Amino acid sequence: AEQPEAKACRMPEFVGTAIGDTMGLVIANVDSALLEAMNIDKRYRSIGIFGGRTGAGPQVMAADDAVKDTNTEIISIELPRDTKGGAGHGSLIIFGADDVSDARRAVEVALNNLEEKFGDVYGNPAGHLEFQYTARASFALNKAFGAPIGKAFGLIVGAPAVIGVMLADVALKAADVEVLGYASPAKGTSYSNEVILQICGDSGAVRQAILTARDVGIPLLESLGGPAPSSATPYI
Amino acid sequence: AEQPEAKACRMPEFVGTAIGDTMGLVIANVDSALLEAMNIDKRYRSIGIFGGRTGAGPQVMAADDAVKDTNTEIISIELPRDTKGGAGHGSLIIFGADDVSDARRAVEVALNNLEEKFGDVYGNPAGHLEFQYTARASFALNKAFGAPIGKAFGLIVGAPAVIGVMLADVALKAADVEVLGYASPAKGTSYSNEVILQICGDSGAVRQAILTARDVGIPLLESLGGPAPSSATPYI
Amino acid sequence: AEQPEAKACRMPEFVGTAIGDTMGLVIANVDSALLEAMNIDKRYRSIGIFGGRTGAGPQVMAADDAVKDTNTEIISIELPRDTKGGAGHGSLIIFGADDVSDARRAVEVALNNLEEKFGDVYGNPAGHLEFQYTARASFALNKAFGAPIGKAFGLIVGAPAVIGVMLADVALKAADVEVLGYASPAKGTSYSNEVILQICGDSGAVRQAILTARDVGIPLLESLGGPAPSSATPYI
Repeated sequence: AEQPEAKACRMPEFVGTAIGDTMGLVIANVDSALLEAMNIDKRYRSIGIFGGRTGAGPQVMAADDAVKDTNTEIISIELPRDTKGGAGHGSLIIFGADDVSDARRAVEVALNNLEEKFGDVYGNPAGHLEFQYTARASFALNKAFGAPIGKAFGLIVGAPAVIGVMLADVALKAADVEVLGYASPAKGTSYSNEVILQICGDSGAVRQAILTARDVGIPLLESLGGPAPSSATPYI
Repeated sequence: AEQPEAKACRMPEFVGTAIGDTMGLVIANVDSALLEAMNIDKRYRSIGIFGGRTGAGPQVMAADDAVKDTNTEIISIELPRDTKGGAGHGSLIIFGADDVSDARRAVEVALNNLEEKFGDVYGNPAGHLEFQYTARASFALNKAFGAPIGKAFGLIVGAPAVIGVMLADVALKAADVEVLGYASPAKGTSYSNEVILQICGDSGAVRQAILTARDVGIPLLESLGGPAPSSATPYI
Repeated sequence: AEQPEAKACRMPEFVGTAIGDTMGLVIANVDSALLEAMNIDKRYRSIGIFGGRTGAGPQVMAADDAVKDTNTEIISIELPRDTKGGAGHGSLIIFGADDVSDARRAVEVALNNLEEKFGDVYGNPAGHLEFQYTARASFALNKAFGAPIGKAFGLIVGAPAVIGVMLADVALKAADVEVLGYASPAKGTSYSNEVILQICGDSGAVRQAILTARDVGIPLLESLGGPAPSSATPYI
């Protein structure tokens, strides 16, 4: 669709925007009544806010890079049912920090790394596939998917969910990996039309499982809705 | 998008339609098996039915006017995840009455007042903002948001949720208001991509908090998706 | 909208595609870690996978035919919030079998019968109506809607939900039927903008209730969004 021209924003809280209608913001001195309303116990002075309409895995991966690189913590990760009429999720991720410069830096890293994380998101009008891989998971992946810190982690998403079930089977047969989680429309998702498999294990095995699922997933999705190109540049 | 031509409906139960694919209906003698299936204890003779595809706050506000003006009660308010591919909610509101003329009158008032309540809904392809204000909340706002009856109440919505977090902070800093509720994608919404802040307090303070949030929200949303005009005529 | 050309898929697991962005697949020897992750106790050797972006009732009805005709069981039925920006659900249905040829046959029957089940789905840009009827419910309808096995069953769906409330009342007044279930945006749906009535009873009464609701529903939906044609060919 045609994209209306976005307008520049000069607010000091504004950090930037990125793919997936994603925005990053910071609050230097977060209101204490807001922290209480958000049910956050710890008295963070500053927060970073990062999320978009389209994409959950990519934003969580980008936030994972950000907490590795900065003096921040992941306060919360929430996944609305969104993607603007698509089959999946949007995202809302909050970083906590003692200093606003740390919060800002985390949001900048996340925004800068986001496009890469859309590299193995493939889509057409019928649905989407998503693959994520890291050799070393950090706190965002731990919070969102229970990934063990410092270990290899992989995410395999198929939408509509019918495709995701098949990809889960293919991935688990392809290599000796461990299932961390399996989410489906009625359990573990926000009622999205996805099956999401989370795996860990030896980094080579995790990567092999993902690549095999990707090889199977693309022709399946294309049989339903035509060409399903990458949203950016594949990275796995 | 082009709007197909709606056809006139001559059913006696039909009251009318309004903005947001909203419809109003009445049932003079509601079937007792239906009341039971809906889990309604009280034996209302007549019900009014009011709701749409797009919008929850506007319909709740319009229903609030309607219960003030008529001899009806709010039976239930339910908020589907809708807005036709947008980031928010739709609505289903049911009025109870002893007499069908009262139910009809409530639905008429709600339909007539709905466009005004869309006055401070601002949208573009990336999301929407919503602001609602009343000096005197009634039963619909009480049921939906816990607003104290007869007191000033304000609603501040930002979508995608990333914007809503910022608006909540700005509003709470702008004036001495009390937080009634804070809803986010995983808690208090139907997994919509929104953050919703509900406030009460002195009417001047509530209004000030809302106006400040509105001033911040519009440029933020426009930085993501271009011009974000009002859906009708701003009223606050 | 223009439909991109789907590409042929030659994988042995691929069974076919159908209306509603629906796909059918089989897995001959399902991975045991996947069965465990899906929380399935029984050790099925083969599974059939069937579901789509648009439609839940039609897919459940088609799966109901499939279990009648084949040596399979319904393992699970999950209903995402989908329909590609519409007001309703998508679907994910899993068949279990000892032999892959049985699983394949079930998926084939479901795919072949799906278009018929869209016969009484009526839609326009404002919403949709769905009516389903069978003189003899089987295991899929039992699992999804609690339909008594071997008895007449009817499904009445109105979206936006405001229309569904009216159809439920009309149906219950039209004939002596029993309410099996009533689902609404906040209860029993995946936050869809629908009211769904499930009824059973004498087959003539069930059919009469459905036909009366259909006569009332179409002009109501058309008053909101213009012509609301059948998605295929009406069968009731």
